Amino acid sequence: MAASTRTSPSPPDEATLARYAELVVGLGANVQEGQIVEIRAAVGKRALVHALARAAYRRGATFVDVAYFDPELRRIRIAEARGKVDFAPPWSGQRVLQLGQLRSARIAASPFSTPGAFDDLDPARVAVEPFPQLPEYRQLIDDETTNWCGIACPDPEWAALVHPELEPDEALGLLWQEVLHVCRLDEDDPSAAWEERFEQLRRASAALNERRFDSIHFEGPGTELTIGLFPSSEWTGGPTETVGGIRHVPNVPTEEVFTAPDPAHADGVVTATKPFVLKTGTLVEGLVIRFEGGRAVQIDARSGGEALREYVSRVEKADRLGEVALVDREGRIGPLGTVFYNTLLDENAASHLALGSAYIDRVGDDDRGRVNRSDAHADFMVGGDDVEVTGITRGGERVPVLRGGSWQI
Amino acid sequence: MAASTRTSPSPPDEATLARYAELVVGLGANVQEGQIVEIRAAVGKRALVHALARAAYRRGATFVDVAYFDPELRRIRIAEARGKVDFAPPWSGQRVLQLGQLRSARIAASPFSTPGAFDDLDPARVAVEPFPQLPEYRQLIDDETTNWCGIACPDPEWAALVHPELEPDEALGLLWQEVLHVCRLDEDDPSAAWEERFEQLRRASAALNERRFDSIHFEGPGTELTIGLFPSSEWTGGPTETVGGIRHVPNVPTEEVFTAPDPAHADGVVTATKPFVLKTGTLVEGLVIRFEGGRAVQIDARSGGEALREYVSRVEKADRLGEVALVDREGRIGPLGTVFYNTLLDENAASHLALGSAYIDRVGDDDRGRVNRSDAHADFMVGGDDVEVTGITRGGERVPVLRGGSWQI
Repeated sequence: MAASTRTSPSPPDEATLARYAELVVGLGANVQEGQIVEIRAAVGKRALVHALARAAYRRGATFVDVAYFDPELRRIRIAEARGKVDFAPPWSGQRVLQLGQLRSARIAASPFSTPGAFDDLDPARVAVEPFPQLPEYRQLIDDETTNWCGIACPDPEWAALVHPELEPDEALGLLWQEVLHVCRLDEDDPSAAWEERFEQLRRASAALNERRFDSIHFEGPGTELTIGLFPSSEWTGGPTETVGGIRHVPNVPTEEVFTAPDPAHADGVVTATKPFVLKTGTLVEGLVIRFEGGRAVQIDARSGGEALREYVSRVEKADRLGEVALVDREGRIGPLGTVFYNTLLDENAASHLALGSAYIDRVGDDDRGRVNRSDAHADFMVGGDDVEVTGITRGGERVPVLRGGSWQI
Repeated sequence: MAASTRTSPSPPDEATLARYAELVVGLGANVQEGQIVEIRAAVGKRALVHALARAAYRRGATFVDVAYFDPELRRIRIAEARGKVDFAPPWSGQRVLQLGQLRSARIAASPFSTPGAFDDLDPARVAVEPFPQLPEYRQLIDDETTNWCGIACPDPEWAALVHPELEPDEALGLLWQEVLHVCRLDEDDPSAAWEERFEQLRRASAALNERRFDSIHFEGPGTELTIGLFPSSEWTGGPTETVGGIRHVPNVPTEEVFTAPDPAHADGVVTATKPFVLKTGTLVEGLVIRFEGGRAVQIDARSGGEALREYVSRVEKADRLGEVALVDREGRIGPLGTVFYNTLLDENAASHLALGSAYIDRVGDDDRGRVNRSDAHADFMVGGDDVEVTGITRGGERVPVLRGGSWQI
């Protein structure tokens, strides 16, 4: 926990940003000579965007196409536009699909807006306004045509949410220090540290794949849930490859091993162990979901419940599971004990599930027609040291998988 | 000159920005219910962009598509990219053309970068890097499919260039005050003030059109130039209309009457009376051009000459004239005596010419095949109180047009 005990951390200087950018452009997105590189970030994050662009051009990128997202423009639209706000001009989605056709690299820096930034607006309008997470991006992920990397970039408003007890400068400095720590940027050779972690994730995946569990059972405070797997459900973690064979790491940091479950089999109740942020920007806290036959039949939350129900009812098959992911306590995020209100970081602190779309390459060809396909993908955290994860074999044997956050297999 | 004699002007408050935005979205672009509105601006100009977006949605815009331009990304590309920098991804131009197909409104706030911002980089690379002024925008202007308005938005770096003798805050405050003054925002009813000025421009255009001059002669210090006109060359000023009949004012402020000359007839020497900024961002000062048979055969400048020669040689027909514009001294910009290093403002302070493309609707159908067509359009100022403008009739009669900056016809 060295990261949080140093005094008065400050935001990174240019050299540190350059080092972060090199890790992201290199190990993360693995930008190739001659590629177009898309960078998506909130308009306030120019310093990191510039560092990423510089690093990408130095690796031989042909063109860096930065899509700045301005959360204030989204607010103005939702608040002021007279009619519906679900329209996106045709060129927005076409651009995304062309990024895939041209085999581009992609980097996205979260958060695009401060979690909860739109919670004072009409939830029905917030739910349908389509920027910045256009559905076409999910198509790119399914097609595996782009080598991409999602990262986190602190900003003052987000830091104030995560560390409300600190002065603004200190909060921003500490959040940056935590982000750089969980990205292994405080190691002499961050890439080597990551390769070591990827080997651990590979071993855990291999052990899970060897067992071919019929289902996974979560049991803890407020949680008693069984999720069915396909015979071909394959666990994986760390790097992946594009259809063209470019290795890349879709999330930095990443601490999870995950697979695509059978969307027809989930039964029981699950209580989220952390708040999470819907892609519409709504903060959801105190979430409890009841599943029957794979479907989320009841969704309650202390806050954000209406927005989540609206989202789930609006988007086809957003009420079924597309991902089950396991996270041990050897990662760097969980031990910090910080709630980041950021999916990238929080989902790598604890085991989690996702409502909506699956990563279809996680199952064999025979089962690809049966995994959940949806424009939605909403991760929520269900794991913790007091949540037991158990694998159930086809023969009915119950095999401990995670106990106290440690692998048992 | 009230604008420049007040003490310590400060940047506009939200209410003033809102008033400016209403003028631009209303009188200027004349945004229609149900239209898509494109706003282009440098990424540092968010406050005005937000005011414009709010005003557009309140007039019934369906969607406001903001294209933020980040000059630092252009600098990084030109400085760091390994290969050529003339590439633009296909979606950039397709988006612009679709704005026309969907009959959108457009607003652009200049400057996109501080004049001279790229002058320390390789001029050959600066000249070919295509952002933010993609050639497709010229197509939209030719097609007259979009109701558009170009405006100015001060920023600290630009203000420091215009008013280097002042403290940064004072310079920015004064520049804003000047911009709002020349936009008639210090009138109780700015739109009514503009309609009055448009009527003056209409009268001057009508008088010029009645004469059907064969050529226009400029004579002043370092200038002795005759420019041929077509029999159908039509003078105009103030508002114009889209093909769909939407009246709009392409430039706010606007003080000029202009037409398309015969690109085969320009002979003599002309000395620019103000510095100007190429669309590549290069500042050109002390420009002298010699024309023979319509072609710029010699281009010299105290600074920026190489960049201008490079630009003119690279872009087809950038070495011939596409516009001749006359500005009297009744406008608000000339009397300020400020050099703005900004084409929108400086071209409306003085009579000017443009190398490159003509506005083809300024000539009759018979002559549309003969006006100059080019991806270039570079305005440079040639007028002043000591530059005499004379019209020469087909019979050889010499008719005084402007003397001491005042209309003679």
